[in-house]
Amino acid sequence: MTDFAENMMKRAVSLARKGVGKTAPNPAVGCVIVKDGAIVGEGWHRKAGTPHAEIHALRQAGALAEGADVFVTLEPCSHFGKTPPCADALIAAKVARVYVGMVDPNPRVCGKGISKLRAAGIQVEAPLLEEKCRALNEPFIKHVTTGLPFVILKTAMTMDGKIATAGMDSKWVTSEKSRRYVHKLRSELDVIMVGVGTIIKDDPLLTSRIPGGRNPLRVVVDSKLRIPPDAHVLHCDSTAKTVVATISSDEAQVSRLAGLGAEVLSCGEDGDRVDLCCLMAKLGKRGVQSVLLEGGAELAGEALRKGIIDKCMFFYAPKLVAGDGLGPFAGNGAGKMADALKLQWVTVTKIGVDILVQGYPEKICLQG
Amino acid sequence: MTDFAENMMKRAVSLARKGVGKTAPNPAVGCVIVKDGAIVGEGWHRKAGTPHAEIHALRQAGALAEGADVFVTLEPCSHFGKTPPCADALIAAKVARVYVGMVDPNPRVCGKGISKLRAAGIQVEAPLLEEKCRALNEPFIKHVTTGLPFVILKTAMTMDGKIATAGMDSKWVTSEKSRRYVHKLRSELDVIMVGVGTIIKDDPLLTSRIPGGRNPLRVVVDSKLRIPPDAHVLHCDSTAKTVVATISSDEAQVSRLAGLGAEVLSCGEDGDRVDLCCLMAKLGKRGVQSVLLEGGAELAGEALRKGIIDKCMFFYAPKLVAGDGLGPFAGNGAGKMADALKLQWVTVTKIGVDILVQGYPEKICLQG
Repeated sequence: MTDFAENMMKRAVSLARKGVGKTAPNPAVGCVIVKDGAIVGEGWHRKAGTPHAEIHALRQAGALAEGADVFVTLEPCSHFGKTPPCADALIAAKVARVYVGMVDPNPRVCGKGISKLRAAGIQVEAPLLEEKCRALNEPFIKHVTTGLPFVILKTAMTMDGKIATAGMDSKWVTSEKSRRYVHKLRSELDVIMVGVGTIIKDDPLLTSRIPGGRNPLRVVVDSKLRIPPDAHVLHCDSTAKTVVATISSDEAQVSRLAGLGAEVLSCGEDGDRVDLCCLMAKLGKRGVQSVLLEGGAELAGEALRKGIIDKCMFFYAPKLVAGDGLGPFAGNGAGKMADALKLQWVTVTKIGVDILVQGYPEKICLQG
Repeated sequence: MTDFAENMMKRAVSLARKGVGKTAPNPAVGCVIVKDGAIVGEGWHRKAGTPHAEIHALRQAGALAEGADVFVTLEPCSHFGKTPPCADALIAAKVARVYVGMVDPNPRVCGKGISKLRAAGIQVEAPLLEEKCRALNEPFIKHVTTGLPFVILKTAMTMDGKIATAGMDSKWVTSEKSRRYVHKLRSELDVIMVGVGTIIKDDPLLTSRIPGGRNPLRVVVDSKLRIPPDAHVLHCDSTAKTVVATISSDEAQVSRLAGLGAEVLSCGEDGDRVDLCCLMAKLGKRGVQSVLLEGGAELAGEALRKGIIDKCMFFYAPKLVAGDGLGPFAGNGAGKMADALKLQWVTVTKIGVDILVQGYPEKICLQG
């Protein structure tokens, strides 16, 4: 593939990125149309129900689209959804060639868009910069292929792996810059999930406090319905609902929570806890594509053991608590170092003075 | 300062680096001589008692040194040590200008070299790329200014801050590439220090297992003289001695250890432990410029609390032990997150799949 083609696809990726977190249940997609070496049309998908990236770009290109090269981060759709198929629009515009970042994992498309283009005599090159294109839509891809949400564990800890001191003090581990980064992340994901212990200890709002930020659905894992009736998540003025996932059938508490506007979600049991796999399946069925798991150590440990974590985002602050502070995962760990859970595709970024390490746990799929 | 001057000093720094770990008690120094925009002489200090960097470079430049620019990472010496003063040699060679990376912290030099050059009509520019030049000789600088060794704490841990599983298994945390890196580090430092717990548990050799590697002096901190008489450090065929630092006066054990060729070093007491500040002072008096503290958690925790750690080198393996594994520092930690010990000048490097984070603890100097 030529450098020029790669650069055009990179441009399409950066256009797509503008839509990340705003297009659910659709994926974020970017598109660039090039004629005689010059960009004549650009677009990205902004919101479900509105035109796809290709349509925006075709409109901008107008008659120049004929004989042009199209760079699109995801295979053009071949089916009628809320909008007509993009493959048809590209054929009608008589483009010469389409570079596709990645095949659409959606079983309703999955190669059919490309076949349709080829059948119409359009040359198709795919995939191109697939890894970058996949990274745009990790939650969409997981959900559309498995029905389950993509779960991101976010943990803020010191360089010696402590999320709190022995006295349970955790304000603040990381810098304001990292915390702002997390607020932005919240606004791009569907659900923010915590254990009831975090509610009892920190009483957080769990909202995305950035201007124009979307508030994710708040899910509290609360096996025994211990959530205090005056918890902020049950009262604060958020556009998003609070769901309390439980195995308890305490009628009084259930109706009290319902009275406060929260939804009590009855889940399957695993030992004496909410079965997190069951909870993920229930959320996935509702169309939840992404979950940000923010704490605490009990829930993180359980999530790790159940194999539901798809991605870890560890924020390290340049400091040491030392001694017997609290680690990020409670409960039983690996017995042998050789059995430790490996992280793949690890990347390291500096966020101000903090260090963000992102990685994907090797799957021990207990989800059946 | 011009880009050209900076580039020449960078070259001098990389020449100096070839001597790091081999020049003790002298610092590593590099020198480049430039005439009419071309390098006419280069040199670095190789070993104490042999010519300094400037002399090597002057010899290579020969008559071309007259009117040339000299780039040297450390202020030229002004005193007679094992070799005559470099400042005199530069004056005799009639160089035009000397760029100095950093002023020599050695009280016997400290500015006198520069004054001597200036008095002889040579133009001196200093400092230039001081930070890079300082980084070449951290142990030398600490020792020459305080009489104490520069202490580097090296810890290998998982991304969740575990140096071992709950069952105390720690083989291996990091990759072979990181372990090789540590063996190279050992060969560049004067002392490798561990607590007796590490000897009892792991029975390490504590040698530098790289071809041509120098073996550091081995120091075991062993307050109660619990070291097993068959420990590898007391028997293995190393060029370096083993010192057992203790507060015990158990005559039988002392003479048994002496019989095995080890030195028992009696130290001041702090509670019921070896006073690490006292031990550092004793090592510093013997000319030890650098100590690599390699474990375990007990010794690391105590060293942190006593404020003797100058630099941390944390190797993170991309894996998670989770649960109640062992953290890098035992004993009391910070009570509040705001009181956590801050690390400064933090850098992040990938070593194969592992992540190396280096930082310098903000000093709470308890050393008096």
